Amino acid sequence: MNVAIIGASGYTGLELIKILINHPKFDIKYIANSSGEQNVQELHPCLKNVINMEVSKADAKEVKKVADLAFLALPHKTSMSFAKELLDLGVKVVDLSADYRLELDTYEEHYCAHEDKRHIKDSVYGLPEYFENEIKKSNLVANPGCYPTASLLALLPFIDYIQEETQIFIDAKSGVSGAGKKLSEVAHFVNLNENTHAYNPFKHRHMPEIEEKIKIIKDKKFQINFVPHLLPVTRGMLISVYATLKDEINVDEILDKAYVDSEFVRIRKAPVDLKSVAGTNFCDIYVARNGKALFINSSIDNLLRGASSQAVVNANLMCGFEESEGIPKIAYVP
Amino acid sequence: MNVAIIGASGYTGLELIKILINHPKFDIKYIANSSGEQNVQELHPCLKNVINMEVSKADAKEVKKVADLAFLALPHKTSMSFAKELLDLGVKVVDLSADYRLELDTYEEHYCAHEDKRHIKDSVYGLPEYFENEIKKSNLVANPGCYPTASLLALLPFIDYIQEETQIFIDAKSGVSGAGKKLSEVAHFVNLNENTHAYNPFKHRHMPEIEEKIKIIKDKKFQINFVPHLLPVTRGMLISVYATLKDEINVDEILDKAYVDSEFVRIRKAPVDLKSVAGTNFCDIYVARNGKALFINSSIDNLLRGASSQAVVNANLMCGFEESEGIPKIAYVP
Amino acid sequence: MNVAIIGASGYTGLELIKILINHPKFDIKYIANSSGEQNVQELHPCLKNVINMEVSKADAKEVKKVADLAFLALPHKTSMSFAKELLDLGVKVVDLSADYRLELDTYEEHYCAHEDKRHIKDSVYGLPEYFENEIKKSNLVANPGCYPTASLLALLPFIDYIQEETQIFIDAKSGVSGAGKKLSEVAHFVNLNENTHAYNPFKHRHMPEIEEKIKIIKDKKFQINFVPHLLPVTRGMLISVYATLKDEINVDEILDKAYVDSEFVRIRKAPVDLKSVAGTNFCDIYVARNGKALFINSSIDNLLRGASSQAVVNANLMCGFEESEGIPKIAYVP
Amino acid sequence: MNVAIIGASGYTGLELIKILINHPKFDIKYIANSSGEQNVQELHPCLKNVINMEVSKADAKEVKKVADLAFLALPHKTSMSFAKELLDLGVKVVDLSADYRLELDTYEEHYCAHEDKRHIKDSVYGLPEYFENEIKKSNLVANPGCYPTASLLALLPFIDYIQEETQIFIDAKSGVSGAGKKLSEVAHFVNLNENTHAYNPFKHRHMPEIEEKIKIIKDKKFQINFVPHLLPVTRGMLISVYATLKDEINVDEILDKAYVDSEFVRIRKAPVDLKSVAGTNFCDIYVARNGKALFINSSIDNLLRGASSQAVVNANLMCGFEESEGIPKIAYVP
Repeated sequence: MNVAIIGASGYTGLELIKILINHPKFDIKYIANSSGEQNVQELHPCLKNVINMEVSKADAKEVKKVADLAFLALPHKTSMSFAKELLDLGVKVVDLSADYRLELDTYEEHYCAHEDKRHIKDSVYGLPEYFENEIKKSNLVANPGCYPTASLLALLPFIDYIQEETQIFIDAKSGVSGAGKKLSEVAHFVNLNENTHAYNPFKHRHMPEIEEKIKIIKDKKFQINFVPHLLPVTRGMLISVYATLKDEINVDEILDKAYVDSEFVRIRKAPVDLKSVAGTNFCDIYVARNGKALFINSSIDNLLRGASSQAVVNANLMCGFEESEGIPKIAYVP
Repeated sequence: MNVAIIGASGYTGLELIKILINHPKFDIKYIANSSGEQNVQELHPCLKNVINMEVSKADAKEVKKVADLAFLALPHKTSMSFAKELLDLGVKVVDLSADYRLELDTYEEHYCAHEDKRHIKDSVYGLPEYFENEIKKSNLVANPGCYPTASLLALLPFIDYIQEETQIFIDAKSGVSGAGKKLSEVAHFVNLNENTHAYNPFKHRHMPEIEEKIKIIKDKKFQINFVPHLLPVTRGMLISVYATLKDEINVDEILDKAYVDSEFVRIRKAPVDLKSVAGTNFCDIYVARNGKALFINSSIDNLLRGASSQAVVNANLMCGFEESEGIPKIAYVP
Repeated sequence: MNVAIIGASGYTGLELIKILINHPKFDIKYIANSSGEQNVQELHPCLKNVINMEVSKADAKEVKKVADLAFLALPHKTSMSFAKELLDLGVKVVDLSADYRLELDTYEEHYCAHEDKRHIKDSVYGLPEYFENEIKKSNLVANPGCYPTASLLALLPFIDYIQEETQIFIDAKSGVSGAGKKLSEVAHFVNLNENTHAYNPFKHRHMPEIEEKIKIIKDKKFQINFVPHLLPVTRGMLISVYATLKDEINVDEILDKAYVDSEFVRIRKAPVDLKSVAGTNFCDIYVARNGKALFINSSIDNLLRGASSQAVVNANLMCGFEESEGIPKIAYVP
Repeated sequence: MNVAIIGASGYTGLELIKILINHPKFDIKYIANSSGEQNVQELHPCLKNVINMEVSKADAKEVKKVADLAFLALPHKTSMSFAKELLDLGVKVVDLSADYRLELDTYEEHYCAHEDKRHIKDSVYGLPEYFENEIKKSNLVANPGCYPTASLLALLPFIDYIQEETQIFIDAKSGVSGAGKKLSEVAHFVNLNENTHAYNPFKHRHMPEIEEKIKIIKDKKFQINFVPHLLPVTRGMLISVYATLKDEINVDEILDKAYVDSEFVRIRKAPVDLKSVAGTNFCDIYVARNGKALFINSSIDNLLRGASSQAVVNANLMCGFEESEGIPKIAYVP
């Protein structure tokens, strides 16, 4: 199965390349960014002696000639125009941007006017633990945001047990690779090192994504109060969900049952950490209860389960392969 | 005013020395740890060419000969036996341990049997913004825990506005100096670097301290659900309090009013961070609201406002000096 | 080909497991440490859902029953008694300790009395770029030290051009994983974070290893002046070699030529860094000249090229496989 | 004594403010940057509740009205035009840029054409341990570069004992605050975290500064081979000097003697580290010998002894105060 990677310059583009190099079923046939005319080794010097390919200036028709599926690791808005063209040419798309993640009105409220209304309603939300069957049949999978991935995997098993009308709080902590490669004040080493702080409290665009998916999957309307924090680490994301239960239930049992068949969700008996999942597609989850107070704690690699490895899982499913085919499981420990 | 520092080996002992060296009113006359027979420059090589004093093996009668006030930077349990002896000899005490922070039954439930029941009821909880007058008249001040300091300063102004019967959640994040100098798995560089994780969720001994003080100060009984996390930084503590308001009130106004006269509480209009307070006695606070959902965000230097500089503020008040006399205000920025 | 890993608890043991899990030719049949009676997932929680095997209490006869080759990731001295027994039973050995790296007298001067003098003279020094043919024929390969690996790969191409009688200086910098898992003052987060310092200047046991190998390989006797430093990072090693050339030669040309056929040595045109090699078996090298002053700059992953992945390269060669079979090339970037 | 700080936006400007706030003899009367019209608390939020002053748009005539001495924390080239005007108005100047550090021809070779040739020959190189008397009489002190400060303090005591015609190598390691506040690829958190690398080997402009000062102070011409490295830390600088001695001398004795009267140079009996000097004006030095091979190891806080606190020491001397008046000695330990 031949694939293309569009948007090879950023971190998620690089992670796609790194996963697909060793993938037993997918063959990288096309790598592109907005400028082209470079070898991928110049773009990412760590790939010297690893892969030797030209980086093209992204062009949908060229993709069609060589690949059956394309990964789009592009900014939102840029992504939808490419996706539209590729889909019309019959190329399957896994889109890592926000462009096809939300219902149209939610999207337009929080992002911008949508320019591919035709395809948005056919897109499937690529959270494999909850949409495996739909993904298998889809030609357009919207890869979830990093925060929603870890938050939803933690929260969904408990939604039915949470008191209606109470507030759900998500205290999220992310490594700074989530902010991308672009230079910025927050990513300046001196500003972040030995530091941490919240940003955009109650205003991050992943908040409506979490709310909408809970509503769709569980048919429950909760106010999600999402506060992301930046950590002085490169990769990894830790989610602490706080909620109020209806009853003093056995939370361990619920969690164990929810993911008994999920290869990439690991239930932990102690609070989760970043290092055990960094470099992998795993989502680790731990839960604790204090009377009716609930604490659900999940961790992922923001660039892998939060982006590129989840995208390849989605591609595996779309192409009829095993979910775990070529998916990284070996953590960056120590 | 002559002072003694008992427990000079640890981080809070070192911070006491560093503050008191340049204090305009206090004179360090006695420095002790459990072994003695060392120069303070051997104990803390960073003090070379800064202070030249013998470290004694701690002895209350020797303290009495040279000092009018003693800072105890000792583990709980060890501290109360020293405090008792010093108080009986007429030496004022600022105790940085947990031994006099709690009411007797709370203490014995969460720590151990108390061996100085006589003095525990005379001790004052050394949170200057709320107990200034009591501290001024006291001979025994119990310096608050680091987490309770930052949590209470954040939460107390809002307690009256929070819906009764709802859960209050505190997601706390601390640098690892809070775990002390002792070698431990969690403080091994390889384990903490590029990592973060919760520990003792709902089980930390600072949780009952916060609950008890809210009850005493505000006469309100709330279940505090406290989840501390360890950050890959040396110093600093960030507190994120989540609660549910009765009404959609103007939270900024409440916060501004609460600390209008407090020199060491700074109200911020953006989320707080560690670096702006590291090296100082400041507590920075920020607040945001999402409907009735409340987010209060505070930061302190865990070793200073969370321990040693707050101890010196308390000593200032106990001795009739200005609160800010000799107290560090210059942050370790950049 | 069935293999055993003895010494599975430490970092290099874990790295061996991680590499061998996905190795196309080697099958892990036996994992041991000094206590046994544990699942490998308990020993290394990051391996949950990755590998499910018992950890045995190390026993050479049990190894013989199931494996043809054993990796010893043991402390020096412990290693030689295992190696001896395994070799006598006909099991090939790759020894990651220092026990078979040096000539007998050098070893005994810097380590301890040697208890396997019979095998020491048959051992081959496992630096594949210089001893490939010997390794292929050997049953006992001594895996080089991490500092010597990166230092020798940098220095050897230039030895013939360096002025005799001049001093060679090696300023080496290592991440703290090189100091192992054991708790220690230097590895306490608070001591190393935001810090760096030299240790054991001119006294590290890798210094005679470098001197001896230069003498053996190049038949030149130089005084190597080796100063290691500890960096506030987990993995990675950077070597800066300083020497004085006989003439103002074209150093780039010499370096390019030296490694033109070496898959795992990458010549760089800018100073090397840790991240481009972390997670891989690559050694990156850069060289610069200022008149007759020479700067050679190399970087490796101390746990991989400096230990476990180089060990697997050696095993590949000993078993007639391709050097690069199953060897990690994908860096932990970003 | 009234002083002005020109260039208040950068890190060294901030450090000047922080030192001078508590200085017993100097009064900050004027703070300026290139834009003005801001409170210093907006420019540096960590100064809230610490100092309340307007930041002006820099203007030499305004300085003259209120101050007798000005600190220039400006980029080279910008600095000389201000210095010239201030000196002509009779204001003493401590210049933290490179503009008056070098002899005219050295300066113009490595920087740019000099526009204040009149004053350059009157300037004094502000390394107090070597130019105290000249500084006391000067109206224009050129504050040394950070690397030259730590390198020269390490190297100068040994220059007479080093073999002529041999190479001197300096392997220097700096925290990234030395690169300033400006956004840059090297200072992006993701690029530097868990990483280290050399930069500009043999090409850094501090190399000719070190060579020139050795020639001036010791009348010896040595080729200095300077290779700076960037460390994943905010502040601190570690220098490792490597050289070849004429004889196997007692290096400890030489070092002890050289700085017996220097309050701010501390001789260490173990390798020096960053944390013991961070936050202070100290330079710690350690020396070791291996036959004729010499290793001198020094550490400073790059923003303090390498810039702002050394500038205030120079100002103290220029104004007839004690060298140590108001100079920070309390390290950021732990």
